[in-house]
Amino acid sequence: MLKPLGDRIIIEVVEVEEKTAFGIVLPDSAKEKPQEGKVVAVGTGFLTDGGQVVPLNVKSGDNIIFSKYSGTEVKYEGKDYLILRESDVLAIVE
Amino acid sequence: MLKPLGDRIIIEVVEVEEKTAFGIVLPDSAKEKPQEGKVVAVGTGFLTDGGQVVPLNVKSGDNIIFSKYSGTEVKYEGKDYLILRESDVLAIVE
Amino acid sequence: MLKPLGDRIIIEVVEVEEKTAFGIVLPDSAKEKPQEGKVVAVGTGFLTDGGQVVPLNVKSGDNIIFSKYSGTEVKYEGKDYLILRESDVLAIVE
Amino acid sequence: MLKPLGDRIIIEVVEVEEKTAFGIVLPDSAKEKPQEGKVVAVGTGFLTDGGQVVPLNVKSGDNIIFSKYSGTEVKYEGKDYLILRESDVLAIVE
Amino acid sequence: MLKPLGDRIIIEVVEVEEKTAFGIVLPDSAKEKPQEGKVVAVGTGFLTDGGQVVPLNVKSGDNIIFSKYSGTEVKYEGKDYLILRESDVLAIVE
Amino acid sequence: MLKPLGDRIIIEVVEVEEKTAFGIVLPDSAKEKPQEGKVVAVGTGFLTDGGQVVPLNVKSGDNIIFSKYSGTEVKYEGKDYLILRESDVLAIVE
Amino acid sequence: MLKPLGDRIIIEVVEVEEKTAFGIVLPDSAKEKPQEGKVVAVGTGFLTDGGQVVPLNVKSGDNIIFSKYSGTEVKYEGKDYLILRESDVLAIVE
Repeated sequence: MLKPLGDRIIIEVVEVEEKTAFGIVLPDSAKEKPQEGKVVAVGTGFLTDGGQVVPLNVKSGDNIIFSKYSGTEVKYEGKDYLILRESDVLAIVE
Repeated sequence: MLKPLGDRIIIEVVEVEEKTAFGIVLPDSAKEKPQEGKVVAVGTGFLTDGGQVVPLNVKSGDNIIFSKYSGTEVKYEGKDYLILRESDVLAIVE
Repeated sequence: MLKPLGDRIIIEVVEVEEKTAFGIVLPDSAKEKPQEGKVVAVGTGFLTDGGQVVPLNVKSGDNIIFSKYSGTEVKYEGKDYLILRESDVLAIVE
Repeated sequence: MLKPLGDRIIIEVVEVEEKTAFGIVLPDSAKEKPQEGKVVAVGTGFLTDGGQVVPLNVKSGDNIIFSKYSGTEVKYEGKDYLILRESDVLAIVE
Repeated sequence: MLKPLGDRIIIEVVEVEEKTAFGIVLPDSAKEKPQEGKVVAVGTGFLTDGGQVVPLNVKSGDNIIFSKYSGTEVKYEGKDYLILRESDVLAIVE
Repeated sequence: MLKPLGDRIIIEVVEVEEKTAFGIVLPDSAKEKPQEGKVVAVGTGFLTDGGQVVPLNVKSGDNIIFSKYSGTEVKYEGKDYLILRESDVLAIVE
Repeated sequence: MLKPLGDRIIIEVVEVEEKTAFGIVLPDSAKEKPQEGKVVAVGTGFLTDGGQVVPLNVKSGDNIIFSKYSGTEVKYEGKDYLILRESDVLAIVE
């Protein structure tokens, strides 16, 4: 199991199929929107300048939208994950 | 539903028709002013360096003026939204 | 009405006619001095790192001098305003 | 009257005549030293990160040495002033 | 023995053999993933702005994933180590 | 008298004659070492983010080593001085 | 004696002879590893944002590894020293 540190979270990226109004699938270079993911693990919290740990707002199982190009890709036991900081999470999809 | 994190807010952009004194609609490149939007969701607040959460001043339903080029565009259930930080909000229109 | 957020203020710019010693009005590119404005609305205050709100020193009705090129131009109900942060205000004219 | 904000001060610049050992007045481009000024107004103090106002050390009437190229030139009622932050003041001349 | 200071940790890098789906070993330039390591020593903790020491979350013996290109290589008694800051650690492998 | 502000100090630069092993005086461009000076005046102290004044460690009469290229040259009553921040002082020579 | 200020330390650099697996001494440009030094003097401590002095972890006599290219070279009474900040120290060799 991967246990993220501090304010980091681990997600599985959800591939969103991109179709135009006429149902045509757009090639990759035409997609510029944020991406969706499912949270699989969260760190213990954000360490403030004052040395306090503030628990994260995101929890395992949450579906999130995050800024494209943020985070680091990790392969673990044959699966791809992305490790983000919680500040890269734009919104939770409820 | 999209739930923004921290000091982030989600808005629907309001298209402002731009006319000159003679009623001529300006093309896009001639518009350089901030934009207007309607707030549809707000985060729980701004996290200070000291680990304190300060509630946002903006609330759902507010009409706001924000700095052009700020925020991230998100498409959710067929509609376009913009996710901003509250610090990108210049003023509330009352 | 426009209500600025936090440490922002809204001003009407006061056009200062610029004359040389011989009374000749200078063209725009020859003017490099700070500008004057009249405050029409102020935010609730400056949010410190510690999460405290410090009220602004500038109030509605004040005439101020501000750094040129600071702030964002806003058009509202046919009038032009400038939204500044209080830190862009150099001095109050009393 | 001009009332500077926060940690700003307003000074009148004192022109220091620059002579070489042989009494030749140097042209402007050959002068690279800090400048002298007389303080005519001071702000209420420096606002710390914690929201505290710390009174300035400089007071009206002080002769100071300041870093060249700092501050903003202001013309007010026909006279030229310079608005500096107190941190641009290098030393007080006593 | 090497004793890292503050929020630094010392690790032995674990070489991960990189194979494609067909079992072909990839050359170095084709690998762009974070790396794995085993922690051999940890510092006393992270010094906050307030002068407090916060103990590290990583401990000797932990297997970690860290950002490629972070840290400084050190040779000590014939062995290669990498000295990282704990903030370069992405996750602990459990 | 020049009275430096805050964490600033005023020094007289001590010219160190630079000789090679064979006693040859090196020209200026060949010298790249820090410089020595004698402290002639010190400010009231360093202002912390919290608004506290921390007295300086350096005092009048101290011989110091400082980073070359730091500080501002000042001419006062015919003598040359250098105004530094205490953080530019590398060490006191005792 | 040289007395470093604040979080600075003074070290004598230890020249590490660099040999390849075949015992060939590498020329300088081929060495890219951190360097070793012996601490000869330490400052009174690190000044936090809050104005607190935190004593250093390194003490006189310690052998340390430090990041190459950090610090300032000083010649004092015919000997070469390096003045570093404690944060440039990677590890203590025990």
